[in-house]
Amino acid sequence: MARIPRSVELTQVAEWDNGKLRRKEDYLAGEEPLEIRVGGAPLSVTMRTPGHDRELTAGFLFTEGLVQRRAQIVSLKVDSQEGERNRGNLIEAELAPESAPDMEKMRRHFFAASSCGICGKASIDSVRSRTLHQPSQDLRLDPEILVGLPDALRSSQAVFGRTGGLHAAALFDTRGELLVLREDVGRHNAVDKVIGWALLKDRIPLASTVLLISGRGGFEIVQKAIVAGLPVVASVSAPSSLAVQLARELRLSLVGFLRGRRFVIYAGEERISKSSREAGCA
Amino acid sequence: MARIPRSVELTQVAEWDNGKLRRKEDYLAGEEPLEIRVGGAPLSVTMRTPGHDRELTAGFLFTEGLVQRRAQIVSLKVDSQEGERNRGNLIEAELAPESAPDMEKMRRHFFAASSCGICGKASIDSVRSRTLHQPSQDLRLDPEILVGLPDALRSSQAVFGRTGGLHAAALFDTRGELLVLREDVGRHNAVDKVIGWALLKDRIPLASTVLLISGRGGFEIVQKAIVAGLPVVASVSAPSSLAVQLARELRLSLVGFLRGRRFVIYAGEERISKSSREAGCA
Repeated sequence: MARIPRSVELTQVAEWDNGKLRRKEDYLAGEEPLEIRVGGAPLSVTMRTPGHDRELTAGFLFTEGLVQRRAQIVSLKVDSQEGERNRGNLIEAELAPESAPDMEKMRRHFFAASSCGICGKASIDSVRSRTLHQPSQDLRLDPEILVGLPDALRSSQAVFGRTGGLHAAALFDTRGELLVLREDVGRHNAVDKVIGWALLKDRIPLASTVLLISGRGGFEIVQKAIVAGLPVVASVSAPSSLAVQLARELRLSLVGFLRGRRFVIYAGEERISKSSREAGCA
Repeated sequence: MARIPRSVELTQVAEWDNGKLRRKEDYLAGEEPLEIRVGGAPLSVTMRTPGHDRELTAGFLFTEGLVQRRAQIVSLKVDSQEGERNRGNLIEAELAPESAPDMEKMRRHFFAASSCGICGKASIDSVRSRTLHQPSQDLRLDPEILVGLPDALRSSQAVFGRTGGLHAAALFDTRGELLVLREDVGRHNAVDKVIGWALLKDRIPLASTVLLISGRGGFEIVQKAIVAGLPVVASVSAPSSLAVQLARELRLSLVGFLRGRRFVIYAGEERISKSSREAGCA
């Protein structure tokens, strides 16, 4: 039991199959609260799958606009003093003095943001005003590379695939090489984890990179991608109307229904093509 | 164009299919912000699919603990004065004086709650302390009824099915009759809409009712179900570890992977069986 990572949990269940009931063991996707504190003051509590919590925190601070670059994060400490049950569920961020946020302002900000982490900034203009990096207009992504990404995602997801309950987010380069993959019960957390990974490795803006997500492409995912300077977001499912509108206005390429040898381009079609230069090198 | 409901949006896309690119029209799931005000003060902004906004607001106020019963909601008014673009995206709730919340307390509450509407109350004890209705221990649900629910959901979802981008939540009685179905880009919103429907119809607690959701069964969904007095929650996908723990401790029946003639019971197995009494009446 002790060797099962906290990201999954083993439990007894009853399976009903065509009238027959049998007991068996089953894996569950781990879900626990994580409290993020900044300079000692509580900033937020989010339900997440334990693991890569420093990346999650870094990505959250960055995509929510509390920090603009790596150097503003002085330290991220996981608190292990809060008793066995809550072990690792508290993370303490220390930010550089010049970027220490006005906590009362943050309070109002999160208050308005309410139920999904982005909602208060629910206008395209507010995303535009926070955009630090224009998505690269030069990047070209070969459709043949794109259609190979979901298989690459799935094969790397094998460890967690057994729970069937996790969203995945992954970054790929334009040759289809996997850079990083993270999973979480919350899709926005999985995205924050991969963006946090990039921030901690000083790889922001993610100019020549594709973000692939396992679920839908909603407004909040596109917003986070834009903040990170990503030029292409692809998902295996449908985007929402506001995600498409945001991607078109801020010139991000948005691909949906990426399944088999088919996909739909909702925005930024010009990037999805064989570049003549790259084709020549192939 | 004018006849398309705001819950879907028609747009031009490019479909890539095995090397061939063609332009076509496609439906998108509508996503727009909804601001909820209580007594004139802003309470929250949430991204949702337009439609059934009064139900969403009632369900949100109830499952978040701002009201405990129908009578505490005096009125829910959709503001149509905010200009064409935001039309219908502002709803004004008037609550009975005795239940008017301490807005400063709510601010702190939502601040802590952060990124998914429930996270700050992320402990089973806090849900227990807010539980008004114990889930009925007498209810029996025939497995043969249960396996029929996903088809009933899908056939009623036909209108929205074309977007492929909406979560669904539905209430059924124990004979498998659909009571209400609502869809939304946010799963928690779809659940708030069906619970809000029940609250506005004075059907809380939902003692002899099954909640079916199209996606995963996470902590926040089980929490909302418990507040509404639901005895059974079923989903077509996986539950999380904390959802299972919460369901077991508060004695809710939780079913996952409800597909074809198979499902997995994670909690409250005793309710999933043919009752001898009901079997006699069949």
